[in-house]
Amino acid sequence: MANETTITMVGNLTADPELRFLPNGTAMVKFTIASTPRTLDRQSGEWKDGDPLFMACTGFRDIAEHIAESLSKGTRVIVTGRLRLSRWEDKETGDKRSAYGLDVDEIGPSLRFAQAKVTRMNRAGKGDGFVPSEVPDDAWASAAPAAA
Amino acid sequence: MANETTITMVGNLTADPELRFLPNGTAMVKFTIASTPRTLDRQSGEWKDGDPLFMACTGFRDIAEHIAESLSKGTRVIVTGRLRLSRWEDKETGDKRSAYGLDVDEIGPSLRFAQAKVTRMNRAGKGDGFVPSEVPDDAWASAAPAAA
Amino acid sequence: MANETTITMVGNLTADPELRFLPNGTAMVKFTIASTPRTLDRQSGEWKDGDPLFMACTGFRDIAEHIAESLSKGTRVIVTGRLRLSRWEDKETGDKRSAYGLDVDEIGPSLRFAQAKVTRMNRAGKGDGFVPSEVPDDAWASAAPAAA
Amino acid sequence: MANETTITMVGNLTADPELRFLPNGTAMVKFTIASTPRTLDRQSGEWKDGDPLFMACTGFRDIAEHIAESLSKGTRVIVTGRLRLSRWEDKETGDKRSAYGLDVDEIGPSLRFAQAKVTRMNRAGKGDGFVPSEVPDDAWASAAPAAA
Repeated sequence: MANETTITMVGNLTADPELRFLPNGTAMVKFTIASTPRTLDRQSGEWKDGDPLFMACTGFRDIAEHIAESLSKGTRVIVTGRLRLSRWEDKETGDKRSAYGLDVDEIGPSLRFAQAKVTRMNRAGKGDGFVPSEVPDDAWASAAPAAA
Repeated sequence: MANETTITMVGNLTADPELRFLPNGTAMVKFTIASTPRTLDRQSGEWKDGDPLFMACTGFRDIAEHIAESLSKGTRVIVTGRLRLSRWEDKETGDKRSAYGLDVDEIGPSLRFAQAKVTRMNRAGKGDGFVPSEVPDDAWASAAPAAA
Repeated sequence: MANETTITMVGNLTADPELRFLPNGTAMVKFTIASTPRTLDRQSGEWKDGDPLFMACTGFRDIAEHIAESLSKGTRVIVTGRLRLSRWEDKETGDKRSAYGLDVDEIGPSLRFAQAKVTRMNRAGKGDGFVPSEVPDDAWASAAPAAA
Repeated sequence: MANETTITMVGNLTADPELRFLPNGTAMVKFTIASTPRTLDRQSGEWKDGDPLFMACTGFRDIAEHIAESLSKGTRVIVTGRLRLSRWEDKETGDKRSAYGLDVDEIGPSLRFAQAKVTRMNRAGKGDGFVPSEVPDDAWASAAPAAA
């Protein structure tokens, strides 16, 4: 894929995720997240809530099942994926319609206000639990001469 | 804050996170993640691993404690934060040094190859579990007339 | 601002930008961009166009005037801003309506297939033309000991 | 490519870009940008500059030539690309070294404080000037029923 529009959102599930199975057996999950921006009022020095940004999200296969098992209404998540615009014609009225949605690539429950107990699933291959063989001993202490 | 460079990474912890407490009692966590890109070889049609991208990450306060409780060596995470370049002078040699790092805003264990059991912490306020009062009933079915 | 959903898009203007002035004299520009993802067909090894992602963009003040002066139908741009969902009630039918849009923070004509002659505007302050006083002589040659 | 770490930065060129040609004739450009975040001091209500984030950028082929023709020291740009960590061994000392860098995918001069006169280059194909055939007439007025 190239020239896709990727997006990262942080928000809360507005309802429990809905898991379905396509005729060919592929798992598919749908859910909506609400992300509420906050604005600092420079007069009062206080934060105010802005309008929530709702986004319809879709995931397929293993991640769909893991989402359905792990997340529920209200869970705060961090999700990254590809923004998509679907367009179709209404069968009854003939109106052209469209809807934005997010195809989920990765998602996890946010640890900002919660803890999580993680269980690796066996199908993982090296996706989870994988650590490159040659890890820097202390990467955050690595230092670079910045200038002559 | 304005004009900060935000970044989202997906990768695996190279070691268990290290939790420390600053003299004023603030919790601080440090860990490194390795993100390994893959390239599709157009000749063979197979995916090959590229060079891993290591990134030193730092988190503070509640999220630091939640990270230390929830994540361990090898956990695949999705993390978003602000890219930072620290620069200092080596006390012994006088060399100018610098290091890139990521100040963590949000992080969660990836559900791509794992499931997670989420526990909300009491200090949450409306950060977790919060759902806006006026949620669209079926946001992903919402449709827009796309054109005249 | 905090917890906003920022997004970067690369696409082409679908029409010339429309410049308006609000009653208080503030310049405001509106335009739509179309971003067309491409997919690599692993069978044929060829790239295919996907469905275009249209996005309505809005900018204010100086950048609105600069956009109207610099960009036109078909120009390929790179734009970054905040994704927003506006919701309102239709005055005639009473239907609830919503529309996604992008509040432009920064935009420029893409140099992938074009060149540009840049003219700084006097109101810039240090925004354009500003270079930090202590620039590393050769930043991309800076190197770090990666491991013990 | 998959699981790459993409990043968008806004900053100023610290020097004129350097154009080189590889032995096989491929154009290659290198430059560094400095991005300076600002923090709002909640006491004084004033913005303060933070530490600049320097990033070494590399581009290839047509975009390399267009950058060299269009940008110069101090130009404010918006750039998106892939964050990369190069690692090597110092031939003299044997020390392991590393450096972060950005492989440029798209870049343009920012229109925040400047205007630009854009010239399409003939090699473009449909990359620039391309507009999908079925453009919504008035995309930003498109509206969706948000809720039942």
